[in-house]
Amino acid sequence: MRKLDETISRIDQIDFSMAEKTQKRLDFLTKPQGSLGKLEDLAKQVVEITKKDNPSLKNKVIFTMAADHGITEEGVSAFPKEVTPQMVYNFLNGGAGINVLANHVGARVVVVDMGVAEEIKVTSHKSQVKSFKNKKINFGTKNFAKGAAMARDEAIRSIEAGIEVFEEEFANNGIDIVGTGDMGIGNTTASSAIVSVITGAKVEDITGRGTGIDDKGLSHKIEIIKKGLLVNKPDSKDGIDVLSKVGGFEIGGLAGVILAAASKRVPVVIDGFISGAAALVAFSIEPKTKDYMIASHCSVERGHKVTLDFIGLTPVLDFNLRLGEGTGAALGIGIIDASVKILTQMATFEHAGVSEKK
Amino acid sequence: MRKLDETISRIDQIDFSMAEKTQKRLDFLTKPQGSLGKLEDLAKQVVEITKKDNPSLKNKVIFTMAADHGITEEGVSAFPKEVTPQMVYNFLNGGAGINVLANHVGARVVVVDMGVAEEIKVTSHKSQVKSFKNKKINFGTKNFAKGAAMARDEAIRSIEAGIEVFEEEFANNGIDIVGTGDMGIGNTTASSAIVSVITGAKVEDITGRGTGIDDKGLSHKIEIIKKGLLVNKPDSKDGIDVLSKVGGFEIGGLAGVILAAASKRVPVVIDGFISGAAALVAFSIEPKTKDYMIASHCSVERGHKVTLDFIGLTPVLDFNLRLGEGTGAALGIGIIDASVKILTQMATFEHAGVSEKK
Repeated sequence: MRKLDETISRIDQIDFSMAEKTQKRLDFLTKPQGSLGKLEDLAKQVVEITKKDNPSLKNKVIFTMAADHGITEEGVSAFPKEVTPQMVYNFLNGGAGINVLANHVGARVVVVDMGVAEEIKVTSHKSQVKSFKNKKINFGTKNFAKGAAMARDEAIRSIEAGIEVFEEEFANNGIDIVGTGDMGIGNTTASSAIVSVITGAKVEDITGRGTGIDDKGLSHKIEIIKKGLLVNKPDSKDGIDVLSKVGGFEIGGLAGVILAAASKRVPVVIDGFISGAAALVAFSIEPKTKDYMIASHCSVERGHKVTLDFIGLTPVLDFNLRLGEGTGAALGIGIIDASVKILTQMATFEHAGVSEKK
Repeated sequence: MRKLDETISRIDQIDFSMAEKTQKRLDFLTKPQGSLGKLEDLAKQVVEITKKDNPSLKNKVIFTMAADHGITEEGVSAFPKEVTPQMVYNFLNGGAGINVLANHVGARVVVVDMGVAEEIKVTSHKSQVKSFKNKKINFGTKNFAKGAAMARDEAIRSIEAGIEVFEEEFANNGIDIVGTGDMGIGNTTASSAIVSVITGAKVEDITGRGTGIDDKGLSHKIEIIKKGLLVNKPDSKDGIDVLSKVGGFEIGGLAGVILAAASKRVPVVIDGFISGAAALVAFSIEPKTKDYMIASHCSVERGHKVTLDFIGLTPVLDFNLRLGEGTGAALGIGIIDASVKILTQMATFEHAGVSEKK
């Protein structure tokens, strides 16, 4: 718990004192004031977070964290659970959606085994080893329809493992902006449970089809989540309790990444629904994290909008995505990078010899 | 008129016969079916447009076309008209918003003088010369509050000049995807007039603040547009008549780019309100152009949504942009490029050894 407490203690409240000065700088650039809308807002937020007048987002990293979920025993997912490790290998081989999109925006993917139900065997191929971290807390969670998904100690360790992977990568390779990503068959079920508890929304209002279950599957999923909440009675005010009762190891790990990013003043780009549940856990542990978060997109998963509204985040993109892995975060990072380049690379009216507004 | 007629005659109706096959390919990739939402739609559209199973968007070009507007005599803009040539030099020197964003997505900017009110003096600096084309039709349009903005012959020549610049760049350097961009003080006034005539919307419903006029300025702008429509009585069914009566040379040029792109089966990414007016002119001349267009974003200019709805386009982004120059198109091109990479670079379930849906 010491690492977690230390990290929390290093998170500053963002005071937005630089916003006016940054807007003035944006207004000196050769464009009508405010005409780059969302890009100007994002550039200002990056300046506030980093406390740098001229931030550069050279080192972009996406942490794609994987774990298995005991709740899959209840038949809540359209895909079999062996897909979790299979997809981890796909990430390591560069064939998944997150590899393509991270590459597109110039981001590195760091794959983390937070609790996959089998050992991940990494070959000695150099690029694989560099992008993989083993932080396995356990071989999947327990079935939360029957009891707690994990021990409280495991929940804390999963968050601290997330902090560790962030800090290792930050120290060794640098991180100027970070995106969150997930893989775990069954994890929309865990995320819906978390979102329902923390936001107070009804289970049926925030549970979606995940990887693609039908109407019957959706009703069953809702019943299972309700059962899990009855059995476990998570304390809505205690993010760690919620995580341990109905969460997942990758969700804890991502909450750790968010806390660590905030403690290092690094902008953290939240992916979809599972990352949103992790953001809720981090926000519940330390509300100051909110201003360090940028929501990349609004997912098809119906609980995602409720999650973003609860934290107070407005998504950058609305592309009907529901893949996870950090794919939306990658696209968001590309846009945020563009916003920072606007601030730092455009000519001023004076320099370009362009007349100002009458 | 021969060049225009020939170009129109080469535009095929897109039949979407490849859509099913492409969706099947997307469904073989290691992700739940349809889970990349908008990206999957965009990838399919690019396949349909290019008729290539594996399109590659290596050569990205944005045509930023500049011209002056006689209507500025009526005091409709927040910026003085000398800003048009000043911004052309800013484009050529790489300091404008479009330079930064085009660079960000790996696109070339080709700056075209379609009718700036003074001679553009290009220095011998190589990068400048390469990215500049002089297709000046005249030294700005006439004041359309008092009569036609240009002769019908000039309207046709502006469209044909747009076709020419596209064809030259296509032949000499290659174009896999193209974005439209504009610069011209006074051109939201001309665009509002075009949009009102072609869509039938009331002038007050589609006229906005352009570069930033106040309430009084907006009322005046609306009155001037109404006066111009009364004086000129453009024929709403004849895009060339509308362009000549109340349009602009850069708007004609961009309509030409759109027609040329469609004739060469190149996806054309529409920027904001002025590009939207150009798209309306192209659509009015040849409705088959619609399926070659991708609307990059929804502008703050209130007439833009009406324009996109009229053509039947759904914008990719909603960022409160109102700069023009092709800035929204550049961001859109980045997203479309990502969508094509998803189709062509992701691993299949079979290849990656990932189990499919139960």
